[in-house]
Amino acid sequence: MTDSRITFAQLRQFIIVVMTRLGLPEADAAIVGQLMAEAEMQGSDGHGAIRILPYARRIRAGGLNLKPNIKIVQERAGMAVLDGDNGMGHLVMQKAAEIAIEKARHCGIGWVGSRLSNHAGPASLYARMPMAHDMIGMYFAVGNANHLPPWGGLDMLLSTNPIAVAVPAGEESPVVLDMATTVAAYGKVKAKAQRGEQMPIGWMIDRLGQPLTDPKRAEEGFLMPIGGYKGYGLSLIVGLLAGTLNGAAMGSEVIDFNHDDTSITNTGQAILAIDLSAFGDVGEFKARVDKLVRELRASERMPDVERIWLPGEQSHAKREANERDGMALPPVLLKQLDAFALELGIPALAAH
Amino acid sequence: MTDSRITFAQLRQFIIVVMTRLGLPEADAAIVGQLMAEAEMQGSDGHGAIRILPYARRIRAGGLNLKPNIKIVQERAGMAVLDGDNGMGHLVMQKAAEIAIEKARHCGIGWVGSRLSNHAGPASLYARMPMAHDMIGMYFAVGNANHLPPWGGLDMLLSTNPIAVAVPAGEESPVVLDMATTVAAYGKVKAKAQRGEQMPIGWMIDRLGQPLTDPKRAEEGFLMPIGGYKGYGLSLIVGLLAGTLNGAAMGSEVIDFNHDDTSITNTGQAILAIDLSAFGDVGEFKARVDKLVRELRASERMPDVERIWLPGEQSHAKREANERDGMALPPVLLKQLDAFALELGIPALAAH
Repeated sequence: MTDSRITFAQLRQFIIVVMTRLGLPEADAAIVGQLMAEAEMQGSDGHGAIRILPYARRIRAGGLNLKPNIKIVQERAGMAVLDGDNGMGHLVMQKAAEIAIEKARHCGIGWVGSRLSNHAGPASLYARMPMAHDMIGMYFAVGNANHLPPWGGLDMLLSTNPIAVAVPAGEESPVVLDMATTVAAYGKVKAKAQRGEQMPIGWMIDRLGQPLTDPKRAEEGFLMPIGGYKGYGLSLIVGLLAGTLNGAAMGSEVIDFNHDDTSITNTGQAILAIDLSAFGDVGEFKARVDKLVRELRASERMPDVERIWLPGEQSHAKREANERDGMALPPVLLKQLDAFALELGIPALAAH
Repeated sequence: MTDSRITFAQLRQFIIVVMTRLGLPEADAAIVGQLMAEAEMQGSDGHGAIRILPYARRIRAGGLNLKPNIKIVQERAGMAVLDGDNGMGHLVMQKAAEIAIEKARHCGIGWVGSRLSNHAGPASLYARMPMAHDMIGMYFAVGNANHLPPWGGLDMLLSTNPIAVAVPAGEESPVVLDMATTVAAYGKVKAKAQRGEQMPIGWMIDRLGQPLTDPKRAEEGFLMPIGGYKGYGLSLIVGLLAGTLNGAAMGSEVIDFNHDDTSITNTGQAILAIDLSAFGDVGEFKARVDKLVRELRASERMPDVERIWLPGEQSHAKREANERDGMALPPVLLKQLDAFALELGIPALAAH
């Protein structure tokens, strides 16, 4: 392909073939392919095609269970805990979302946590799932590498532990917040390093508390939490809810999956579904969200600010553009994926 | 009293007598007195004794319903929506917490939202309530005055919308996060103004986006959200969950209760209780929290940092000190309360 653009269907199919070759059952490979391609399409480019090779590396190293028995180990009417049996996180969380939605139908809300899960891609992917059933979705996760010390500390015992919340609207696109509890996610630091750019002050500090702006020196410092001690508290709380509550890894138990392909990560996540119809008329709720969204968007702007964005709106625009025009993957990544396809003896990404 | 220190019992009793005089039924006055005194004792000094006069002003102006019929208007097994009938927020939220706890006993989790409620004091007060039942508590609220524009905007359509989460520990004190989604709560700005101090850069900006550090000029600017657009998103999401979902006020519907004593505020709040026993052995969970807390506290510190604090630990220490030594109220406030007692023909605070 001369313009390096690939379609959603190409990327999904490529991932399905790769995952099947690596030993995933076809039905599971289909789920992983669908969700990873969706991540790429919505602009979460740290969680889409770029993850194919690291996941493959971990699978080949034996760090992931290819035939997991994902099962409920604790349950009440409104909640469950899933044991992911060290399977791909996408499979665990897809199932968690389905159960949470089912529970919310009966109880009004449904909460499903996981242990022995794995990295599952962008938080918003799972927070968005309940929306198709006229439900609000929330998602918490323990990140798969610690880059954050407690406030005032030097030991990186916490991760970027993200929060995502997706709220359905009527005519407007849904309000979808997907945020790390650090000022920048670690993937953004890596991207700056790749592009040879400096980081803004406030992303990272060094061990003396001084601003660190050279992303090549990232390993000498750590990420800053949002709002100082508040972000530290938020990261800890997310970790308690998504990790500790489910018997999953937290603190020093967290495995750095960038540097360790074999240890069981025991990743913890949690998803909450809130059924709008339990709270009143769904149409009225959506109309109230539309009204609020429009009020915010039409409100007075600072000088030089062109537009007021709602959370998730830019991702929504990106998804539409990618659907229409195809997705532009970095040439370096395309080359790596082509080489990997050759090695596996499967057609290249662009040929799918 | 020469040292201006008052006991918890004195403050609680004073508030009960004040509220009864103002027309609250005795049982309701007892709840309000208890909760406001607890707020003061835990160091939430923006929500304790300092609120007596503003609440009294609103009650006398007819802005609060003294005999509310607080009732469930929507319900499923795991959730409910309470109509607060414009009663004191403390009464609505105390009831909401009780219902959420009861629901969590059966469903594992319980979510209760409110509309037509009012200001209820510090968020942590309600997040803490489920802990006595070995449950995690979460609380979200729409603030009662808008001080935050959307990111890039100038219209203050959002409030400091707080989040509180309380997680029980074993031998350690519980982990309790209570945070506004702005860098500083508006009460802290008022406190700086009272003390004639400047604000640090980062608390507020003016309408040109420049740092605003003079708290006397606070009305010319607005609060900064934590983490920039992330805090804006978080404030909006909290407002959607605590306000819009319950049919309570959000955006331009929010009444500024500092400047309006008569309009119905239609305050929205939400409380979530998570029953630890539904997730596994409660003792094991608490031991895991203890281990994590100790690991964070004992971790390596930055130069000049004396101690690593856990969220809620300073408040816990304050509560113990206040219980032991009594609470030191600002002399100005004590004088105002004495004058108010004289006007009502009741004994002064210190005489209770």
